[in-house]
Amino acid sequence: MKLCEVVGSVVATIKRPDLRAHRLLLVREIGGNRATFVAADVVGAGEGQQVLVSQGTAARVATGDPSSSCDAAIVGILDDGEAIGDGT
Amino acid sequence: MKLCEVVGSVVATIKRPDLRAHRLLLVREIGGNRATFVAADVVGAGEGQQVLVSQGTAARVATGDPSSSCDAAIVGILDDGEAIGDGT
Amino acid sequence: MKLCEVVGSVVATIKRPDLRAHRLLLVREIGGNRATFVAADVVGAGEGQQVLVSQGTAARVATGDPSSSCDAAIVGILDDGEAIGDGT
Amino acid sequence: MKLCEVVGSVVATIKRPDLRAHRLLLVREIGGNRATFVAADVVGAGEGQQVLVSQGTAARVATGDPSSSCDAAIVGILDDGEAIGDGT
Amino acid sequence: MKLCEVVGSVVATIKRPDLRAHRLLLVREIGGNRATFVAADVVGAGEGQQVLVSQGTAARVATGDPSSSCDAAIVGILDDGEAIGDGT
Repeated sequence: MKLCEVVGSVVATIKRPDLRAHRLLLVREIGGNRATFVAADVVGAGEGQQVLVSQGTAARVATGDPSSSCDAAIVGILDDGEAIGDGT
Repeated sequence: MKLCEVVGSVVATIKRPDLRAHRLLLVREIGGNRATFVAADVVGAGEGQQVLVSQGTAARVATGDPSSSCDAAIVGILDDGEAIGDGT
Repeated sequence: MKLCEVVGSVVATIKRPDLRAHRLLLVREIGGNRATFVAADVVGAGEGQQVLVSQGTAARVATGDPSSSCDAAIVGILDDGEAIGDGT
Repeated sequence: MKLCEVVGSVVATIKRPDLRAHRLLLVREIGGNRATFVAADVVGAGEGQQVLVSQGTAARVATGDPSSSCDAAIVGILDDGEAIGDGT
Repeated sequence: MKLCEVVGSVVATIKRPDLRAHRLLLVREIGGNRATFVAADVVGAGEGQQVLVSQGTAARVATGDPSSSCDAAIVGILDDGEAIGDGT
């Protein structure tokens, strides 16, 4: 899963019907190339939070819809105070 | 989903039959490495619009054809006035 | 689909049997990072032509062989005179 | 499989239920672009170890859960003393 | 398929059982970003040889094991004397 920060949301009135089931959030990769992309939120994430994003078929599974055309989903929210590299 | 801008279309008379079902548009990634690639348009997007592009099996699902050889599809169109990073 | 130019072919006498079904062409990405990779040709492309390349399961579907170990396939050939960014 | 080093772990109380089955470790790619991402640990890896990470459907298979929303999994641990590029 | 050179092998005593079926070789991409990663060898490749590497589900298919957690496999060996860009 990619570690990302939620930086906003997108409004797309015209879209595939299956994409209406979840909010579409704009996320930016932490580490890596800091790419920005859009993920369906299945866990209730909010702007500014650090999240785990799954891509590919794993994201389609996360939406709970086998006919999903979604290729990225927020599947977890990092606890407050957690920082990259912290051991447990 | 990648956030892209439609920058043109491509004409390919010779192609796999399943690719005749949808217009093939040239899209350029917004953010990230600004790569240009080709996506099947299943939502009626036009040049200059900002769109959501799904890749992989999600794109094949979006075409509605299980035997699709398409690996990228435009699955949503951003509303006018929406900009990357806008909160809701 | 990635927009690529056919820049050659590869000869691999030793390979998985399923890969004998199609010519293996060397393609270079147009736009993006200009990476060079190998794709199975299912549409009869030739050196110097601009082509559409699908990757992943879409490529396996394109070969028509469900047990294909191919992860990239040329699925279309751009018409002569077409250039990246042309509108319709 | 990507060759990575385990550099920490992540705590995400809120996450998809299927992600509770395995520890989520932070890994950094060795070679390549040294990207940092999160992988489910199915082999008992520890911080500082060099590991093999599978991505995509292979990772979902590795978790043993067909409804997994995990897209990266640690599937092997390099032996002590092994270094990249060692012949056998 | 990516065009890679075999640059070594890896020894991982602890790994998913399905990964014991094939040798795990270290390969470096020729062209592209010269990333180094690990692939299962299903064709008998040796160090120094140029090989074709499939990724994703194609690699799992190549191993012949539907429950494989392998995401990269060497599926062909370039003939001696072949060089990137050679026409046919």
